[in-house]
Amino acid sequence: MINIGIIGATGYAGEELVDILLKHPYVRITNISAKIDKPKSISEIFPRFKNKIDLICTEPKIKEIINKCELVFLTLPHTVSMEIAPLLLTAGKKVIDLSADYRFKDTKTYEQFYKTKHKDKQHLAEAVYGLPELYRMKIKNAKLIANPGCYPTAAILALAPIIALNSVDLSSLIIDAKSGVTGAGRKLAESFLFSEINEDLKAYKVNLHQHMPEINQELSKLAGKKIKVNFVPHLLPLSRGILETIYVTKTENRKPKTENLISLYKKFYKKEPFVRMKEEGEFPRLKDVVHTNFCDIGIKDNGSMIIVIVAIDNLLKGASGQAVQNMNIMYNFPEKAGLA
Amino acid sequence: MINIGIIGATGYAGEELVDILLKHPYVRITNISAKIDKPKSISEIFPRFKNKIDLICTEPKIKEIINKCELVFLTLPHTVSMEIAPLLLTAGKKVIDLSADYRFKDTKTYEQFYKTKHKDKQHLAEAVYGLPELYRMKIKNAKLIANPGCYPTAAILALAPIIALNSVDLSSLIIDAKSGVTGAGRKLAESFLFSEINEDLKAYKVNLHQHMPEINQELSKLAGKKIKVNFVPHLLPLSRGILETIYVTKTENRKPKTENLISLYKKFYKKEPFVRMKEEGEFPRLKDVVHTNFCDIGIKDNGSMIIVIVAIDNLLKGASGQAVQNMNIMYNFPEKAGLA
Amino acid sequence: MINIGIIGATGYAGEELVDILLKHPYVRITNISAKIDKPKSISEIFPRFKNKIDLICTEPKIKEIINKCELVFLTLPHTVSMEIAPLLLTAGKKVIDLSADYRFKDTKTYEQFYKTKHKDKQHLAEAVYGLPELYRMKIKNAKLIANPGCYPTAAILALAPIIALNSVDLSSLIIDAKSGVTGAGRKLAESFLFSEINEDLKAYKVNLHQHMPEINQELSKLAGKKIKVNFVPHLLPLSRGILETIYVTKTENRKPKTENLISLYKKFYKKEPFVRMKEEGEFPRLKDVVHTNFCDIGIKDNGSMIIVIVAIDNLLKGASGQAVQNMNIMYNFPEKAGLA
Amino acid sequence: MINIGIIGATGYAGEELVDILLKHPYVRITNISAKIDKPKSISEIFPRFKNKIDLICTEPKIKEIINKCELVFLTLPHTVSMEIAPLLLTAGKKVIDLSADYRFKDTKTYEQFYKTKHKDKQHLAEAVYGLPELYRMKIKNAKLIANPGCYPTAAILALAPIIALNSVDLSSLIIDAKSGVTGAGRKLAESFLFSEINEDLKAYKVNLHQHMPEINQELSKLAGKKIKVNFVPHLLPLSRGILETIYVTKTENRKPKTENLISLYKKFYKKEPFVRMKEEGEFPRLKDVVHTNFCDIGIKDNGSMIIVIVAIDNLLKGASGQAVQNMNIMYNFPEKAGLA
Repeated sequence: MINIGIIGATGYAGEELVDILLKHPYVRITNISAKIDKPKSISEIFPRFKNKIDLICTEPKIKEIINKCELVFLTLPHTVSMEIAPLLLTAGKKVIDLSADYRFKDTKTYEQFYKTKHKDKQHLAEAVYGLPELYRMKIKNAKLIANPGCYPTAAILALAPIIALNSVDLSSLIIDAKSGVTGAGRKLAESFLFSEINEDLKAYKVNLHQHMPEINQELSKLAGKKIKVNFVPHLLPLSRGILETIYVTKTENRKPKTENLISLYKKFYKKEPFVRMKEEGEFPRLKDVVHTNFCDIGIKDNGSMIIVIVAIDNLLKGASGQAVQNMNIMYNFPEKAGLA
Repeated sequence: MINIGIIGATGYAGEELVDILLKHPYVRITNISAKIDKPKSISEIFPRFKNKIDLICTEPKIKEIINKCELVFLTLPHTVSMEIAPLLLTAGKKVIDLSADYRFKDTKTYEQFYKTKHKDKQHLAEAVYGLPELYRMKIKNAKLIANPGCYPTAAILALAPIIALNSVDLSSLIIDAKSGVTGAGRKLAESFLFSEINEDLKAYKVNLHQHMPEINQELSKLAGKKIKVNFVPHLLPLSRGILETIYVTKTENRKPKTENLISLYKKFYKKEPFVRMKEEGEFPRLKDVVHTNFCDIGIKDNGSMIIVIVAIDNLLKGASGQAVQNMNIMYNFPEKAGLA
Repeated sequence: MINIGIIGATGYAGEELVDILLKHPYVRITNISAKIDKPKSISEIFPRFKNKIDLICTEPKIKEIINKCELVFLTLPHTVSMEIAPLLLTAGKKVIDLSADYRFKDTKTYEQFYKTKHKDKQHLAEAVYGLPELYRMKIKNAKLIANPGCYPTAAILALAPIIALNSVDLSSLIIDAKSGVTGAGRKLAESFLFSEINEDLKAYKVNLHQHMPEINQELSKLAGKKIKVNFVPHLLPLSRGILETIYVTKTENRKPKTENLISLYKKFYKKEPFVRMKEEGEFPRLKDVVHTNFCDIGIKDNGSMIIVIVAIDNLLKGASGQAVQNMNIMYNFPEKAGLA
Repeated sequence: MINIGIIGATGYAGEELVDILLKHPYVRITNISAKIDKPKSISEIFPRFKNKIDLICTEPKIKEIINKCELVFLTLPHTVSMEIAPLLLTAGKKVIDLSADYRFKDTKTYEQFYKTKHKDKQHLAEAVYGLPELYRMKIKNAKLIANPGCYPTAAILALAPIIALNSVDLSSLIIDAKSGVTGAGRKLAESFLFSEINEDLKAYKVNLHQHMPEINQELSKLAGKKIKVNFVPHLLPLSRGILETIYVTKTENRKPKTENLISLYKKFYKKEPFVRMKEEGEFPRLKDVVHTNFCDIGIKDNGSMIIVIVAIDNLLKGASGQAVQNMNIMYNFPEKAGLA
């Protein structure tokens, strides 16, 4: 039974994390904090937690957190995490950071897309990109996890098995992404008002989204060469879930072999508890993954092009669920603990 | 062809008003203004109006408005209207005010529910409550219209035909109201974010809503005695429309006479272009009134109680549509002009 | 570890039941059946269950079910349950029936509202109405549970603490109920198509709904006299959740004592794991109860009237969650097992 | 004032057509028919039309229709139109057919995708594809209009201006399409139930949709060579609107010239009343086009790829609005009549 702290508990990812950890058999939440006017019971902030947890949420008090917790989750806005993480790491605590602050090995890219200087290059060097399906061994021994972004989680899992194939043209990858609104966090902006989003659909940050360089970094690492994807995210009138339709041009137009590709994926993800492959002719839908930590993948080869469709819950496999999966690996808990 | 000004065009009611007036055969919008950082084309603010109207929306410049317009609609927040209306009225302009500022004959009630002193008692005295079905003759000659609130429009139309019956107990009227989100205006508050409202339902301001005293005032006038209703509004996860389920206790438990009641209502609203009665066993639904200026009413007598269900579009019959209906009456235009 | 059968697993309640039982530490699903064209893996029917359960869903084969299961849940349409339950009961199995077949002690009422003869009066006599907050002791020893309807669960829990007060007029109870669409089951009718329900709201079966006599039966039992409520259900454009706004006339108009009432409720539900009372001025919302087995209740006394607002998840506390709660009681499992 | 018949008035496109024509200043609906059990007032079928139109909807009686109407709209299922159109055309009536029956010049393609023999090759030869922006002159003199499909309308308008450019690789066009649910018609299938679609998103008919060959036919005509697009439609949890994100690979990776492309499009659609171009950095959203006949287009060149985003209302510019636009052209009415 380990003791857990959550800093930044009042956002959607923080709320979801509380929800998961309350069901987790091997951990105990011992400190909850956030940017907050005055201390308030977490069950007053989120009445759904009444009768389940009674901790008071305060401004983060680092000393107290260090005393009370062994592992700390940071569900903080970008740029805030890297001010707090070093304090915890130096005190010997383990940290799982859900922000982008420790995801980019190249700080220039980070600084370009997040419009701020990086302040903790020291720990950045040792941070492990927390995608268990690719980096489980490193995660096992990590002290600092950079938990992946939601769009990148889906995109990388969808492409990892074929990115190294010769038959695939890496210069024109297209990711048409669709996300529910919680993906944007609990942001107070007119464009996120109900009446603005309901019955609407729009693309945003067309080929400019900050998750694009994260996808590029990870795919380039896998491919062993520089990859630049085309990435167009769309905002859906629903609360949770990401579905990405990915178009991969083949280097040669040959007879479609969807079946072979599905086999390849099944083999690649054979031992993964949270990746599920669709059979030929079937494709993922949000309904099947929402409120779960699963990533569903479907694939079709039409001769000249491979179409991969992938779906996750942005708050679970795309954020807090994956963070708990990482914790489970770090502590040798069963990987599904709290997530089934 | 008369010249129209709209002050406060950037809210939902203002936007809807622009939309209606663009389709109106006898008017021309000649000035558009709102609280706004810098002048902007109205079609830039609302891209849906591109290719339809090109006026620049600026901060309200009263002199210019007086020069360019004969009639001015105020779609302003409560308390702002009563600062602007006097300037226009004094200059001989006609004003249709969609705020609550001129609805209450008793300023004490206004001041209690809107938390501000009333600043224009002079014009308040001559303001006409703009519910055409009850006050068409007064509206005809009015210089200042106090356009009714959305909840009150539905409630009053639903109750007017029976409020004076002896068989009805006026001491325990219950109005269970359900409204779409545009009813609250384009308000930037966490509780109106998509992810907060989607898949949710809640009551709010239980027996405290500022539309309750407006309903009380108007029903009391009709009944000739003081009426205090029970009013519980609920916020629906949809954009437009109000549906109210109204429970009226009968003074005696007698054989149900739904049919008679429907006849009574049909007679009462015989010549009304925008009130439609449902037949026995049928009840209104939002879908039939949304994007129209209609008010649909259904009724059932179960012996001890009369249940009246009423539906309107909160932005049309509940706001801008009714405002245009009032204008049509004031200017002897066909009452349906712009509204069919 | 007990062995469970589910008959009727392809509806919403059945699907939800599978989901709960998979998380339950003390049970194992050993048989799944439903009206179905040909045998199919349950994870093929509901792809969300892939990697979680592999049972084949077939037409119900009673012998096999009797051999393999100790307790059987019936998530069947009304009138079908009473054909199957006797076979299981006679074989010594325990049955939790989610249909209405065993809810009515008075078969005349059942026959009037469900338009069919009752075929199993023998077991009807011994069936226990499965509302744990009122009948926990009887449930403990029951062989056949009549699991309550969703609307009645909310209404009865909201009214039980005050139904016996002298200060309450039982002759004019009004229940204005709002339900998400899964409440109607997976019914193939034009009125349940997405485009019909989205952005709509309507009342239906006004004072005619089959849950009304169920509420009447239970409230009458509690009050010790005949009660007939006014019940108007509305269909909401959302998937899950019921919110009821209940209006209770007081016999005398006295100073409001909301605080006292809240204390009364808190005392009444003191030991209940799934009932949560709101503090004065606060009211339930669907978001807090959806995907939980909680029932949230808020209350306001305005002098002449008491307004009670109650919210549950129709598929959990209103159906499958409550069924599992009943099972937990029957088998002396912790009452929250599988439901936290 | 011309007399209009509508055959198939009970579907979404038929309902929308009634709505438009009621606002049209130069036409009169004189006959309404549909597959229907017994004659029923159209305002009983669609209560929203009460007080607006009183015609009785019957089974189609061809003689009566011929006597009463000059122009007939067919909003019928595919394969039914081609049984009825010949009877009307032979009698000298004009026909605007909203089904796919007269869209394919190559009957083999039609027969492959619509799984039926074509029965009216004679009139097929003279049918004009009713996309005004490309074929206005032919439409002017047409007797039979094949009104385009909703997805094709958006795709063709989005691609027409660049399809003939040398800098564009026509072999790998990708159309990622997203549609609201009315696009599927009033179809009674489990997959269109509210609870199935709400909070869900899925791709369907991946590269198999019957609108794909229609897009191929029209683009090939424009390009002067055979084009085969990749077409993946997705079903959105909203009622109306289509948004397509289209990816066009450039033959050479050059400096992006978004501005030039926008100029090209503006010139191409200079005189079009219903096509609106977005400025650089802006993209269409459904909200701006829904309930209008507009088609909004935005574009971005990122060096290697051109991304075109297009939005229409599937029931208006994608069906009934475009049908009325075609009628306006055929009868020399102002092109916007009934559509503003």
